[in-house]
Amino acid sequence: MTAADAVNAYRHVALVGLGLIASSIAHAARRAGFDGRITGTARSAATRQAALDLGICDAVFPTAAEAVDGADLVILCVPVGAMAQVATEIAPVLAPGATLTDVGSVKARVIEDVAPHLPEGVHFIPGHPIAGTEQSGPGAGFAELFDNRWCLFTPLPDTDADALARLIAFWQALGAKTDVMEPEHHDLVLAVTSHAPHLIAYTMVGVADDMARVTENEVINYSAAGFRDFTRIAASDPTMWRDVFLTNKAATLEILGRFTEELFALQRAIRTGDGQLLHDYFTRTRAIRRGIIDAGQDTAAPDFGRVPKGAAVDGPKR
Amino acid sequence: MTAADAVNAYRHVALVGLGLIASSIAHAARRAGFDGRITGTARSAATRQAALDLGICDAVFPTAAEAVDGADLVILCVPVGAMAQVATEIAPVLAPGATLTDVGSVKARVIEDVAPHLPEGVHFIPGHPIAGTEQSGPGAGFAELFDNRWCLFTPLPDTDADALARLIAFWQALGAKTDVMEPEHHDLVLAVTSHAPHLIAYTMVGVADDMARVTENEVINYSAAGFRDFTRIAASDPTMWRDVFLTNKAATLEILGRFTEELFALQRAIRTGDGQLLHDYFTRTRAIRRGIIDAGQDTAAPDFGRVPKGAAVDGPKR
Repeated sequence: MTAADAVNAYRHVALVGLGLIASSIAHAARRAGFDGRITGTARSAATRQAALDLGICDAVFPTAAEAVDGADLVILCVPVGAMAQVATEIAPVLAPGATLTDVGSVKARVIEDVAPHLPEGVHFIPGHPIAGTEQSGPGAGFAELFDNRWCLFTPLPDTDADALARLIAFWQALGAKTDVMEPEHHDLVLAVTSHAPHLIAYTMVGVADDMARVTENEVINYSAAGFRDFTRIAASDPTMWRDVFLTNKAATLEILGRFTEELFALQRAIRTGDGQLLHDYFTRTRAIRRGIIDAGQDTAAPDFGRVPKGAAVDGPKR
Repeated sequence: MTAADAVNAYRHVALVGLGLIASSIAHAARRAGFDGRITGTARSAATRQAALDLGICDAVFPTAAEAVDGADLVILCVPVGAMAQVATEIAPVLAPGATLTDVGSVKARVIEDVAPHLPEGVHFIPGHPIAGTEQSGPGAGFAELFDNRWCLFTPLPDTDADALARLIAFWQALGAKTDVMEPEHHDLVLAVTSHAPHLIAYTMVGVADDMARVTENEVINYSAAGFRDFTRIAASDPTMWRDVFLTNKAATLEILGRFTEELFALQRAIRTGDGQLLHDYFTRTRAIRRGIIDAGQDTAAPDFGRVPKGAAVDGPKR
């Protein structure tokens, strides 16, 4: 099956929410050869207009119910905390046989919030593309966002196998690799690889901003020593991340507990001067980086391949 | 004064330690037009040979005393914990009128470890270029490393003004911006912008590696969601970082204490469902990122401008 066949298995894709992920889906689908209809909705009129102007949607609507009317693939691209409300709005107009999926970073809670509202005959298949940048909004999207990134699905026990296969083929045509797992396991894995690191980055940036004995200029000018990597993560969308933490509470707090325990052990090694423990620990963590590069999930270029000198402030080179 | 004049104010530069920073100094000095002699030393014979083969040094020596003999600029590029030992080795051969500087990430302790050993007439000016990558060794250096980065100096009360001006001009010719501050203040600022973030990143990567319920493959494959940024920092040189924490103990532990306090406040907000607090916090931290980009200390490109797709594993593009 070609990528064009895979995306054209659907004739009308409805995007509920028109941010970075939704707009990247539209760009990637068109790149793959999608020739059907893309409709969309967003709460803000400015966002809807931008999505039209950028050519992301063929038509935009002020309500989700209008946007999904007649769609055979509906993708919920709103913050996790807004899923329940959207589900109640669209449930009455969802067509039998349509596939409903989402891109939320948390899966158990989305299933809990969405599934009860759905009519018989709709294929609800929760999904999560592990991709994104620190930027938000319809203008932030680009067709390559999902290339070589993983998209995870957490189907329900009664999910139709054909509908799942069709959705997986669609995401692979957008460039993604795909996998299937249990919702609770997904939420634990993401707490480790995403949710806890984000909270930690937010915290460290907040501490730096708060240190009265260190000026903001100093924090900014001397950020190249490590801190600036944290600021990228801590520049992510506040609403999306508030919702992630509130809806993946248990797993996030569990990992943060483990993190604090480990941090205290390293702090104690610093206090007592246990250089051997520190050296062994830092040697072990170095190996993980190599695995990520070998798996094609990051660049091997030093410093993420940031361009040195003046070029660094000139923006993206693609 | 041209860059060539500035670097050629010295005729013989001795590099003690031949890693990422030392080799970058050599490359940047040659780029600026340095036509004098560069000698070097490293503990490992393989490193010394690599430095010769790469053209970093005109001559290498097995001991620091031989390498610095006759030099008018000596730059200590060894881990902070090795500075005292090196100072005792080179003190007898340091020429009167020579400038001795270093590139250590900690300043108060380096002054304490080095100054007592020095003979009269040597200008000891502690320095710290805020630049680096996660890679190590003489092959990791490149001429652009210091471009647009800050190099801080923490001169002693009796430092000769001409010697300081000469060293500042040298570093500016390597591409750096320069500033002068008190050693204790330097160590506090760097604890915020570098030392605490590194320990936190090491810790988070260690936790992920330890989670038996999450496989290593999962950690690696799904790292694009935030975690992989931490792995870059946690891939930094273990010896260098062990020494940083052990020699900047008080400031690092202070900042980690502040960090933990703040992390607990955010964990509590998650537990109690205080979405407003989280949203306000994440909105505030977003602003800092903008400041760093405006100051030219990071790229505005999303995701650090990492190249999508296959290109990501092909290495640097310069």
